[in-house]
Order: sequence, then structure tokens, then C-alpha cells
Amino acid sequence: MTPYVAPVRDVRFVLEEMLGHGSLALPGFEEASPDLVEAVLEEAARLAGEVWAPLNASGDHQGCRLKDGQVTLPAGFIEAYQAYAEGGWNGIGVSEALGGQGLPEVVASAVQEMLHGANMALGLCPMLTAGAIEALAHHGSDEQQAVYLAKLVEGAWTGTMNLTEPQAGSDLSKVRTRAVPSEDGSGQYRLFGQKIYITWGDHDAAENIIHLVLARKPDAPEGNKGISLFLVPKFLVNADGSLGERNDVTCASIEHKLGIHGSPTCTLSFGEGEGAIGTLVGEEGRGLNHMFTMMNEARHKVGIQGIGVAERACQQAFAYALDRTQGRSPRSGRNDCTISDHLDVRRMLLSMRARTDALRALALYCADRLDVARHAADEGERRLAQARVDVLIPVVKAFSTDQAVEIASLGIQVHGGMGFIEEAGAAQLLRDARIAPIYEGTNGIQALDLAGRKLQRDGGAALESLVGEVETTAATLKENGELAELGESLAGGAADLRAAMVRVLEEGTDPEQGADAVQAYATPFLSLAGHVLCAWQMGQAALAASAAQAAGGGASGRADPFYAAKRQSADYAIRQWLPVGRAQRAVIEAGMTSLAAFDAATQ
Amino acid sequence: MTPYVAPVRDVRFVLEEMLGHGSLALPGFEEASPDLVEAVLEEAARLAGEVWAPLNASGDHQGCRLKDGQVTLPAGFIEAYQAYAEGGWNGIGVSEALGGQGLPEVVASAVQEMLHGANMALGLCPMLTAGAIEALAHHGSDEQQAVYLAKLVEGAWTGTMNLTEPQAGSDLSKVRTRAVPSEDGSGQYRLFGQKIYITWGDHDAAENIIHLVLARKPDAPEGNKGISLFLVPKFLVNADGSLGERNDVTCASIEHKLGIHGSPTCTLSFGEGEGAIGTLVGEEGRGLNHMFTMMNEARHKVGIQGIGVAERACQQAFAYALDRTQGRSPRSGRNDCTISDHLDVRRMLLSMRARTDALRALALYCADRLDVARHAADEGERRLAQARVDVLIPVVKAFSTDQAVEIASLGIQVHGGMGFIEEAGAAQLLRDARIAPIYEGTNGIQALDLAGRKLQRDGGAALESLVGEVETTAATLKENGELAELGESLAGGAADLRAAMVRVLEEGTDPEQGADAVQAYATPFLSLAGHVLCAWQMGQAALAASAAQAAGGGASGRADPFYAAKRQSADYAIRQWLPVGRAQRAVIEAGMTSLAAFDAATQ
Repeated sequence: MTPYVAPVRDVRFVLEEMLGHGSLALPGFEEASPDLVEAVLEEAARLAGEVWAPLNASGDHQGCRLKDGQVTLPAGFIEAYQAYAEGGWNGIGVSEALGGQGLPEVVASAVQEMLHGANMALGLCPMLTAGAIEALAHHGSDEQQAVYLAKLVEGAWTGTMNLTEPQAGSDLSKVRTRAVPSEDGSGQYRLFGQKIYITWGDHDAAENIIHLVLARKPDAPEGNKGISLFLVPKFLVNADGSLGERNDVTCASIEHKLGIHGSPTCTLSFGEGEGAIGTLVGEEGRGLNHMFTMMNEARHKVGIQGIGVAERACQQAFAYALDRTQGRSPRSGRNDCTISDHLDVRRMLLSMRARTDALRALALYCADRLDVARHAADEGERRLAQARVDVLIPVVKAFSTDQAVEIASLGIQVHGGMGFIEEAGAAQLLRDARIAPIYEGTNGIQALDLAGRKLQRDGGAALESLVGEVETTAATLKENGELAELGESLAGGAADLRAAMVRVLEEGTDPEQGADAVQAYATPFLSLAGHVLCAWQMGQAALAASAAQAAGGGASGRADPFYAAKRQSADYAIRQWLPVGRAQRAVIEAGMTSLAAFDAATQ
Repeated sequence: MTPYVAPVRDVRFVLEEMLGHGSLALPGFEEASPDLVEAVLEEAARLAGEVWAPLNASGDHQGCRLKDGQVTLPAGFIEAYQAYAEGGWNGIGVSEALGGQGLPEVVASAVQEMLHGANMALGLCPMLTAGAIEALAHHGSDEQQAVYLAKLVEGAWTGTMNLTEPQAGSDLSKVRTRAVPSEDGSGQYRLFGQKIYITWGDHDAAENIIHLVLARKPDAPEGNKGISLFLVPKFLVNADGSLGERNDVTCASIEHKLGIHGSPTCTLSFGEGEGAIGTLVGEEGRGLNHMFTMMNEARHKVGIQGIGVAERACQQAFAYALDRTQGRSPRSGRNDCTISDHLDVRRMLLSMRARTDALRALALYCADRLDVARHAADEGERRLAQARVDVLIPVVKAFSTDQAVEIASLGIQVHGGMGFIEEAGAAQLLRDARIAPIYEGTNGIQALDLAGRKLQRDGGAALESLVGEVETTAATLKENGELAELGESLAGGAADLRAAMVRVLEEGTDPEQGADAVQAYATPFLSLAGHVLCAWQMGQAALAASAAQAAGGGASGRADPFYAAKRQSADYAIRQWLPVGRAQRAVIEAGMTSLAAFDAATQ
């Protein structure tokens, strides 16, 4: 199997040459220099490539086991997780005030991509912990922060998100888990209920697991407003910080899944005995809001995860295509050429590479805006950046993960028959990637978030300003001789997105059928936005690569094949991939009348 | 898990209402009446639904085992295969002269879809046998036919295709297996070599297995012309037809695959001892030609297989969406509505259903043309039909299987988190479907076959006449009040396909770079053709459904929801799906210059 090599140079190209390391100039990042970032990326690449990646296939093969209520991880996972925690990686994006390294989100995101590319199943553990840190940092009491935050940030303890119940999936208003206030005046609660699909809900890689749980007090109203957020540790924590008794929360079963076998997906039972002891996080009745605080970032992280898997699929497919000989090259006439010489195989490889480059650039651009939204000195600037982030996140989550599935599937195809054989490793990437369009809000939910909430609430202003950026890039390309044709295509994509936006806004304002109509258009609209924004980023990439070539940049000057490759990616993304996305405008404009009349029961 | 119900009415709609049972009027099918066909379909549906389908999940879970050189199938597979053979199903499409029932291919194809939908892994066994029957019927000697054909047709023995070797996959000219003539004057050969990816290469469901093997005589020239086809039985057959000694062919290993776990994929070793005894089939040095005789039909069958899995994915997704409650319907305002009430879920369901309907109609249309090509009294008519079949088959194979993967993936998405859990059964369909774009010639090879060989050899005449049919249907739709808009879209699709064809023909005639250039355009071109031809078929479906409604046809007259559903499928396929395919024209016209310059090694 091809070893995974973290894409340090590709990441640096985005951070340095496309984003100009803008985040490093923000207040709060004074100590983060480009050299430091480079060292961090190199070190992360080593951890990912040498420690995490070699366990990806064995972790898939062995899977997790549940025995006597305790989950056992695949061999080596504990050590790999501990190497991560001991290296301080869990805190790189966490502020220094909370005990982290306080590096920009854009750097933390780049590191996450490497770890997910190396081992997505293992990468989920810290991803969930990050959510718990975020929730406690924003909504935890002083005491909760004092007891739990440092341990979570250093990775000694891990966190989970307990949302789903059998009857409450996309619709969390149906949560039934009960939290009964203790009568002893301790302010504690006793939780009773069952949560399903709890990622890393139990395991043996950390001393304690901190569950954040959506539940209702007995007197709470029905629906969203009755839901509060509770903290329930696996082991109770004594006043001195040492671990006390086992809490009344047990892992009832683990799921047999299509992929991410190394990540235990648990059914957790709270309160089979006297009730699981928990404490309220934040305000009563605001559990869903508190959860959504971190959901936005978790969604960004899932998008990043898709990109990590896509990158690994690229690497495997390229390595295979450069090694496997078959047939005669019509160009060189060489017999027994490598299959990378056949243009149809090249088309697949270039399609995989160009899309992965584009998704990465967009996701890191989004992270860069997150840094601005949090750290810019000017409030107006922060607000604008946040508005842009709000629009970008559903696109990064849904589009990156849908594409990751397609890229992993193409990776199988490049392998031919070997792609279907599990030992080759290409199949695992498809199996693993397939969860990402589902969790942290299905991609259908993301599309509704974009075309419904995010677009309608400001009349499209935030997206409109983003389309303006696309148009600016298109204009710049048009003025740049060899890139002019890319500018034309990109401008066409921007026009399509603008037209579709107008249509979706019109549909959404119908007082009778607005919400319904938007649902019908949401997924095609998100797909169109994803294609146009990715093409935009590749337009930026073409400009950056072209500038570097003109300046004789790169290791070997103008001839540096790295920049030529990035320009080929851009060429493909804008000329071959964008047209497919632009078709979604026609899909939207054809109208969706048949959906409202469609009755699945009579099919 | 949702039980599989074979889509008898959908199939009958195509055979009776779209194709008008045209094949039954051909010479040779005098005894096949519509009533007989209906009875056959009902009976096949019973076998598929009651016997084969219940073993699909357990077969996947148990997989095949190899012990002491003998493959053991999952529990129940032997009995299910025998029920099939004893029911006479193996011969339904085989001519009566060879001991079959001699039903039209279009009927046999419909039955195959049901069996693959029920259990794709098991369905592969007779699919391979059909290839062996075809090869022997066309190229076998009288003696070979006398000894082997009847047993294969009745299903007592099964057949395999031994093409691939580690160094010879898509490029079979590299086959190295040796066939050494016996010196005893028997006319027999001794075979030595290793074949990989042999589907149902060994198993315990039949008394004997007849391997058809590509190999070279010691003095044969290199390349394609040195390859001959040999028949190598697992057990030697005595003069009286009884089974003799075990031949020197053994199963060395079976593959651990992404899907179709119930189908043993074997590495076969020929001649570990004194050589596997075989006889030459057909002419020396014409092995590849003989193999390709049956390849065309095998490719059609793989397309059908994709449709079977797509149909099952539809059924599972519809059943889940009609059962699972979640959220509030914006239309009815009902709380706890089924998820089929959410328009984004409906969009997925309708997309799955419309595509499956369209793929089925196109594949059965192709089978109908196969019947004409074989049975029409007029030679000119036969020739025209064959030319059309030649163009259609790569489209049916590649487009149906690519779409099947997407449809199965959408089926997972409809299930939400449950889709990722193996017990739900949706994931297996994706895993199973994923092989179909790879085997029997990868879909890239199909695209080359279409855009290269098939298109270039007659200057596009056969496809042009097919586009003419699309235009005729578009014109008919335009004259039909409520369907006029569909006619407009379809006409646009036809124009796109015509324009792309001109472009691909131009590229292909460049004496320097023709073959190369065509490779670059082949896959987008096949995708465009697939979308347009499927939309065409759904235009025909809309006309047929509309006519039935006008005539008050169907069980409940004009209000019969079956016809309304078919019209919705047509509406979706032409207005929402076709635009995505039409974008491939823009992809082709943007040119593929970057591919020739793309060097995978510098990425």
C-alpha cells in the first residue's frame, strides 16, 4: 500500500502564496512566525505519516471490540493517540489562555487535514474533544472550566457529543433523555436515557471521557426550548482533580459500520442504575444553541476530513498509475507504458488532484476568515468575516465531503480490478469517506442551512459579496494574457451563481411555500456554489502560481514543476469541472414543481 | 431490512407499453405469447424475491471460504442456485436448438435484472455460464458442443472466463499462460499458468466447472494473434459423459473484496502438476476474437446487473423514507412527518427512481434491438439493429453501472446515519455495485470503445441514426400539449450530442493524434450519450404513460398512480437530470489540451 505523505508543500502554497499568511498579522498571533508555522507543518507531517498512517489499514481490518462494557481499540491506536497528545497537538488551535498554543485556525486546519488523511478513524477522537473544549470554553461555569478544560486541552481526557437518540436524529427537538435535579442541593443532575451514534463514546486511550449530553429536565417544555446541555464524565472527578468512581454511563453496543472501523461508534446508556451524575452547561433550555456554537466549527472540520481522505486517495491513485504498466502509449508508441500515460487515466488523476486542490484552498480560505472573524481588531471587519464564514461553512462541509466520496470512488477506478480488493487500500478510503456527507448534519441539512437560513436572513448579502470577489478574480484573470480564458469561464460561473441566488431568494420569500420551495432547490444550489467557489479559488491558485513562475520562484525557478502542476489543476477545475457545476443553474431554473406533487407511497 | 420485490409492473411497462412486445413478432418467437412472458416474469419474481433475495445479506456477511483448495459458498447458496437450475431458468434466453427455452433476449434481460437485484453475488454464476454457452455455441467443435453444451444450458455445470493474469488486465495481449499440445495425438493440450480475478472460479454448487481459458501455444507469436481459447474442465469428462478425474487446475486463493462477498473471486493455477488438460475452442490464434463474441453480451448483462442493484437501492430507500419519521412537514405542517415528506429527501428518491426507470428502459431497448439483430427476417434490418446494438452496449454497460454506484450511494444518504450501519443493508448495495464499473472492461474501456472504435469506424452513422430517433421523439413530445416542454429539453440534448459527436469525430481523424485525442474525450462523451439516450427513453415513457392515462388504462383508469409516477420520473429525468449530462458538451468543447501535457510524476 502506498505510504501517506502529508501534503506540506500544497498546504504551504495555500497558506503562503494564496493567503499570504494573512492570519499571522492578526492581533494575538504575534508569536506565530512563518518559520514557526513551517516547523509545525513539518512536524505534523511526520506524526501523520510515520505514526498515524501506518495504522490506517490495520485499524480498519481489526476494528473495535466491546467486551464487558469496555471498548478495545485496534492495536497501536492508544500509542498513536498518546504520541499526539504528548506532542501537544491537541491544543494547537486552542487559545493560550486555555492552555493551548493559540495558533491560527488556518494552521490548525492544515494539521487536521494531515491527521485525517493519515487515519480518519483516529482523527475523529480529537475532533470530538475539540467540540467539547469549545462548548466548555464558551458556556462552561468557572468550576467546570477549572476541572475539565486543561485535561481536555492537553488530551489526557477526551470529549464526546451526545445528541442523537433513536427517535431524534436530524430533528433534535425530539430528545427524550431526562436530567433530574438532585435533591441534595449539590446542583447536580441524574441523567437517564439512551444516546446512539456516539463517536468515540467509549475507549481505552484516555484516562477519562467527558460526555456532553443533550437532555431535558422533568418539567421542561416540549421541543427545542426544553433541551439543556449537561456534562457527564465517565469517571467522576474528585475535588482534588483525581478520578473517583465510575459514573452510571455504559457502552451498550458498538456499531458494525461501512467504514471508519477504528472509530468506536457507541450506544451509550445513561442511568441504568441510580442515574448518571452530570452538571448543567450554560443556560437551562439553551442546550441546542450551545451545541450549535461548536457545530459550525465541527462542520468545517468534517469538510477538512473529507479533504484529507481525498488527498490520500490521490496519492494512492497516482502511485498506482505510475507503477502499473498496461497497454501501449499512443503518444510515445511505447509498449508496456504505465497507465498514467493513457489519457483517460490522466483525466481521472487530474480530476482527483484538481478537485482536492480546490477543496483544500476553499476550506483553508474559510479558516482564514474564521481567524479574522475572531481576531481582527476592527469589529466591522470581524462581523463581515463572520458573515462570510457562515455562508462558507455549509459549502465546505457538504461539498468537500460529497466530492471526497467521488474522489475516493475515482481512486478505486484508477486501480481497475485491484481497486476492488481490500488489500490495495483504495476501497477503505471510499468506505471511510462515505460517512462524512452524513454526520454533523447531513449534506441535505447543510444545503438547507445555506439556501434557507443563511441566504434568506440577509437577503443574500454575504453570498453576494463573495460572488463579488469571484468576479474580481475573474477580471484579474482576464487581464492576464494566458489566463484570460479561465477568467471568461469563471465570470460565467459567477453569473450563474448570482442568477440562481436570485431565483432561490424569490422562491424563499413566498409566504405560503417559501420554506418548502427552498428545500427543493437547496442541494442543487449548494452544488453550484461549491463548484463556483472552488473554481474561484483555483483562479487564485493560477494567479499565484503564474506570479511565482514569473518571479522564477520555487526550488528550480520558472521550470519548477510544482507551479506548472498547480496551473494544470486550475485549468482543469475551471474548464472541465466548473461546467458540470454550472449545469445546476439550469436544474434550478427548470423548476422543481414535480417534487411537491411527488408521492413516494405510490411509486 | 426491506424485502426485495421484483419490479414486474415496471418491466412490463417497458416490454408491453414502450416496446409493444415487438420481439414476440420476430421469426422464432412464435410460441412466446404475451401471456407466457407475463407468467415467466411472475415466476422469476417469485424465485428472486422468495429464494434469492433472503440470502443477499447473509451471503455478504458470511462470504466464501477456501479450505484445502475447495471453495465453500455462503449458507443456502447451493440450494438457491439449484432451485434456479431446476426451474430451467438458465436456459430461458438460449435457443431451443441448444436445449433452452428460446425466449427473446429482452425477456431474459428482464429476468436477469430481477435475479441481480435479489442477489448480485449469486447472479454472477449464471452470468458467467451464459458466456461459456455463447462461446461454445459459436466456436465449439461438434464434440465440444455434444459433451458440454447441454450440461451448461441446464445449469448442472457452470462456466468461467479466464482472461486476466497479473500482468495482463485491460491489455490481454500480454497473456502468458501456455498451452502445450499433447504428443499423444489426442489433439489435447496441457495448460500451465495462473489466472486471477476468476469469478466463480471454484465452488460447490455444481458437479463440474468448465473453464474457458486464454492461452498461447509455445510457438505462438507475441501479442493478440498468438492467443487462443481453450476449454479446461474442473473434472475431466469421460466418453460416456460421466465425470472422470480431477483436472490439474486448482484454486490457489480467493480475494477479500469490497463487495459481492458471496461470489468467489479466485486465483486459478493451471498445471501445477503435469498440466491441465484442455482442448482448443475455435481457431488457433483467434482466442481474443472468440472471447469478444460473448464480451458484448456480457457487457450488456453487467449493465443489467447495475440496474438490478439500483432498483433494490430504490426499494430500500423508499421503504425507509416512508417509515422513518423526523421533523415537521412545511406543507402539511404535520409534526413527526415521514422523511419522504421533506422535499430534499423527495429529490433524492425521485432522482433514484427516475434514473433507474431510464436505465432499465434503455437496457431493455438495447435487448430488443439484439433480438431484431438476431432474428429479423430481413438482413438489412438485422444489420441496422446490430449497428445500433454495437453503439448502445458500451453506453448500457458504463452508464448503468456508474449510475448504479451513484444511486446506491444516494440510497445510503436517504437513510442518514442508519445508512452507514451495515445491518441496514444500504451499504452493501454500494459495496456490491462498485465492481460493475470495473469488470468486463472498465468503464474507461467502454468509453474508448464508443468514442473510438464504434464511432470512428462508420463515421458516426449508427449513432447519428439513433440521435435521429431522439429527435423524432422530441418532435412528438413537442406536439403533445402537456409534454411540449419535455420535447424542448430533449431536442436540446439531441443537439448537444450531435455537436459533441462532430467534435469527437474531428479529433479522431487527426492522423497524428487521433487515437490519443479520442481517449481524452471518451468518458465525457459516453456520459453525454448516456444522459441523452436515457432522457429519450423517458420521453418515450412519458408518451406511453400519457397514452395509457388518456385511454383510461391501468387498474384504476386515468387515476392509476402508476402512470402518474412514470410521468414524474420522465419529468425529472428530462428537466433535472438531462441538464447535468448536457454540461458534458461544454466539457468536451473546452478542449482537453491539458491532459496531453499532464505529467503525473511531477504532481
